[in-house]
Amino acid sequence: MNAEKKIKKPSDSYVNMTELVLPNDTNTLNNLMGGRLMHWMDIVSAIAAQKHSNRIVVTASVDNISFRHPIQLGNVVTLRAKVTRAFNSSMEVRIDVEAEDIPASVKINSNSAYFTFVAVGPDGKPTDVPEIEPETEEERNYYDGALRRRQLRLILAGRMKPSEANELKSIFDIKED
Amino acid sequence: MNAEKKIKKPSDSYVNMTELVLPNDTNTLNNLMGGRLMHWMDIVSAIAAQKHSNRIVVTASVDNISFRHPIQLGNVVTLRAKVTRAFNSSMEVRIDVEAEDIPASVKINSNSAYFTFVAVGPDGKPTDVPEIEPETEEERNYYDGALRRRQLRLILAGRMKPSEANELKSIFDIKED
Amino acid sequence: MNAEKKIKKPSDSYVNMTELVLPNDTNTLNNLMGGRLMHWMDIVSAIAAQKHSNRIVVTASVDNISFRHPIQLGNVVTLRAKVTRAFNSSMEVRIDVEAEDIPASVKINSNSAYFTFVAVGPDGKPTDVPEIEPETEEERNYYDGALRRRQLRLILAGRMKPSEANELKSIFDIKED
Amino acid sequence: MNAEKKIKKPSDSYVNMTELVLPNDTNTLNNLMGGRLMHWMDIVSAIAAQKHSNRIVVTASVDNISFRHPIQLGNVVTLRAKVTRAFNSSMEVRIDVEAEDIPASVKINSNSAYFTFVAVGPDGKPTDVPEIEPETEEERNYYDGALRRRQLRLILAGRMKPSEANELKSIFDIKED
Amino acid sequence: MNAEKKIKKPSDSYVNMTELVLPNDTNTLNNLMGGRLMHWMDIVSAIAAQKHSNRIVVTASVDNISFRHPIQLGNVVTLRAKVTRAFNSSMEVRIDVEAEDIPASVKINSNSAYFTFVAVGPDGKPTDVPEIEPETEEERNYYDGALRRRQLRLILAGRMKPSEANELKSIFDIKED
Amino acid sequence: MNAEKKIKKPSDSYVNMTELVLPNDTNTLNNLMGGRLMHWMDIVSAIAAQKHSNRIVVTASVDNISFRHPIQLGNVVTLRAKVTRAFNSSMEVRIDVEAEDIPASVKINSNSAYFTFVAVGPDGKPTDVPEIEPETEEERNYYDGALRRRQLRLILAGRMKPSEANELKSIFDIKED
Repeated sequence: MNAEKKIKKPSDSYVNMTELVLPNDTNTLNNLMGGRLMHWMDIVSAIAAQKHSNRIVVTASVDNISFRHPIQLGNVVTLRAKVTRAFNSSMEVRIDVEAEDIPASVKINSNSAYFTFVAVGPDGKPTDVPEIEPETEEERNYYDGALRRRQLRLILAGRMKPSEANELKSIFDIKED
Repeated sequence: MNAEKKIKKPSDSYVNMTELVLPNDTNTLNNLMGGRLMHWMDIVSAIAAQKHSNRIVVTASVDNISFRHPIQLGNVVTLRAKVTRAFNSSMEVRIDVEAEDIPASVKINSNSAYFTFVAVGPDGKPTDVPEIEPETEEERNYYDGALRRRQLRLILAGRMKPSEANELKSIFDIKED
Repeated sequence: MNAEKKIKKPSDSYVNMTELVLPNDTNTLNNLMGGRLMHWMDIVSAIAAQKHSNRIVVTASVDNISFRHPIQLGNVVTLRAKVTRAFNSSMEVRIDVEAEDIPASVKINSNSAYFTFVAVGPDGKPTDVPEIEPETEEERNYYDGALRRRQLRLILAGRMKPSEANELKSIFDIKED
Repeated sequence: MNAEKKIKKPSDSYVNMTELVLPNDTNTLNNLMGGRLMHWMDIVSAIAAQKHSNRIVVTASVDNISFRHPIQLGNVVTLRAKVTRAFNSSMEVRIDVEAEDIPASVKINSNSAYFTFVAVGPDGKPTDVPEIEPETEEERNYYDGALRRRQLRLILAGRMKPSEANELKSIFDIKED
Repeated sequence: MNAEKKIKKPSDSYVNMTELVLPNDTNTLNNLMGGRLMHWMDIVSAIAAQKHSNRIVVTASVDNISFRHPIQLGNVVTLRAKVTRAFNSSMEVRIDVEAEDIPASVKINSNSAYFTFVAVGPDGKPTDVPEIEPETEEERNYYDGALRRRQLRLILAGRMKPSEANELKSIFDIKED
Repeated sequence: MNAEKKIKKPSDSYVNMTELVLPNDTNTLNNLMGGRLMHWMDIVSAIAAQKHSNRIVVTASVDNISFRHPIQLGNVVTLRAKVTRAFNSSMEVRIDVEAEDIPASVKINSNSAYFTFVAVGPDGKPTDVPEIEPETEEERNYYDGALRRRQLRLILAGRMKPSEANELKSIFDIKED
């Protein structure tokens, strides 16, 4: 019933996760391996999607991620995630990663990423989730950009014709948020 | 000295990795978590980049990945990686993932992904790597597409103006390889 | 030099950590094992103590912890830590643990605990840390109670005579904070 | 039927566990993290409580633990546990931890701790366990002290009024066993 | 029905597994621990036996393994497995292990091993598997040697009298394959 | 100096290790994987060899192991190791494995194995270790059998001619100890 479909705010799904970089997370340069960081990103964003939907969720896709700064053994990594927009049964989650060498008082904005998830019901099938109503200006930017990013995902997955991607034409204005 | 710069084939960097999906790799639906699969993708593609460059390598970026099929607890996951193209100190690696329920004789092409790596020398600084000479038609397609994907990465990272992305204009012809 | 000794607030050391309960974290009843939870408590409180002191820290002691509610496989566990009081080179950290079954919309206050840490300098020896100035009434209560809890720790470790524990006499008024 | 209630000796539940300190168990000082040691303590004492009760057990509480000596990477840690006393469905277990640098022939008594467990039946509810009959003088001391420690636990958990804690009045005579 | 009993080739069960030696896999000399390598050998050979039988398999035995060369932290370990011969419900799998220090361009044949597995059906009981028809000369050598190795296993397990081990008499001609 | 070469007893190296079978240790039948058990066997026997030699040790070889009984999820596994005999810089260690389903009061002798280790000095080179003087009749049997097992290892590794293996001729009398 649409009448009772809930609307939620991005802040309702906010999750904050902190991890300590241990030896097995690092390569032979003593830097955090990219795959380990993506593993953490997947967990924190899955929890955000769960909080938005109150459902079990499965990872549907990951957008382009770039790793700009090495993160060292012993650093503290903070991952912050919240849902930016929902489309029927799918949700886009933005994750911001920060790394800190606490004894040296050095903190860096490591990188950001977008993961999408699908909510599934008790029958294992996709199920609709609440819509998102952004509150802050930043949240509105993420909400608007979600449409462009979705069209790019669909084209890259061969599921949308480029000529139909009206929103994507502004891709040439996309900047790293 | 450019004169002695080596040229290598994609097959020189080929790596095949097999993993068994164990309980801790799965979510509450008993499906492999996306983050765990990305962790494996990172390791197999880093080894391919190491084989191409004979250097320590660090993950620079990951392209859009979509997860189409659930992979179950107890499945065998095969990851195949090879370098598609090199640009100075960076290398693009393509990974193809296949999942198999052996007792049920069911095998699926799970998904594909592109990771890029930077080779670093003993001083920790980026260092040039051999160029790639594709041999098969498939390898030539990956080699040609690498330029488009690179431009998309640079634009998404805010490091290239869309107007300069001549190759990317053909993005609207990109299909899931 | 005492003149430049910094004073910090409890909120300066606040850390929020989120963990997903995976199969290997559970016993044969599919409940989170107490030892695994204590491992997470130790990491989150060590990070809080690092943030307060900007030093490497080592765990010195753990106060009595009681585990009142089972936490299930698939639950999301949130741990919140902040420093309550500092004594020369040692810091007391309070950790509050909450567990959530998100699909069922059930959240419980699992339990609380106090861990103490010692800050060590580059020479591996204990080094003084900033003092704490509590801001909220709750923080003042934790700050005041820290003295009683410290005396109890010293007596239990055989390092203080009960007759000297003036503050501890109020133990008979201690309540679960 | 009380008539058939079994009585067991502390030695019936004795468990000896040996662990090698690996890189991921250590902090940036290459010392064993307190949380990892508590994880091992929980496992060894849960096995002791299982042996006493022949039941599935869940961790109910942990008494104050102090970590006096750093334990190094590569050390061998020996944990010895046995049940000291039973109260209806709950059991107190004492764990003694010893660390050894074998090539250097150095052995230290690291620390001791008391964990309590509750035995649960097939219906998931607490179920009575055999009583304990101590045999050695040391076991009798642990057995007697268990009553004091239990009263302290109940007071700290806000479940007993200090004025009722007759045994605890001797707390001022408690020594590190 | 024997008439439909399938015959398979060793290459049908071929599995290639690649592992990166991480800190927690190593001892205090920074060398891969033998037990960790055996864990990987067990997984790769179990997958080979699964591929041959299309059944769940359980490890039945491991033949003598010798570890001749240390494998270093950061090395890439390649394990190749294939079924050499089948006996009713059991299969012998040969594993060849190679270790590579890629930046140093050094590759060593680490060692070889034979593991045997039993295939079990949905009822948990042993079930017959296809027979093996070797194709290459090397595969025929492994096939022939399997009989000798089987007799040695049975004698060592006390399940065959030495006087009945006709094939084993040639043990004195066994060489490291 | 041989004059001061120490002689030790098997009991000097005795190690007892207890492990709980967790989900990630098991296959899809919920049975402990053979490779995981071998990993534990390697650790417990390496500690025994360290205790005998007071040196860092490396795994040299593993004798034939057979896995007769499945070990279930939630079982407690006890591994007992002691050195049976020393040969210059190498030591043979016998490991006995027992598995217990404590709530069901079922205990099984799972299996036994022999691992050999080499002691290395600070220069990374093999170094002589104390000799063994067996005390009990069982220890004398293990001590005597060590010579036969050593000849079998050397022949299987292609390092001894069968015609020189005088002790091995009694292999046809070998029984599972």
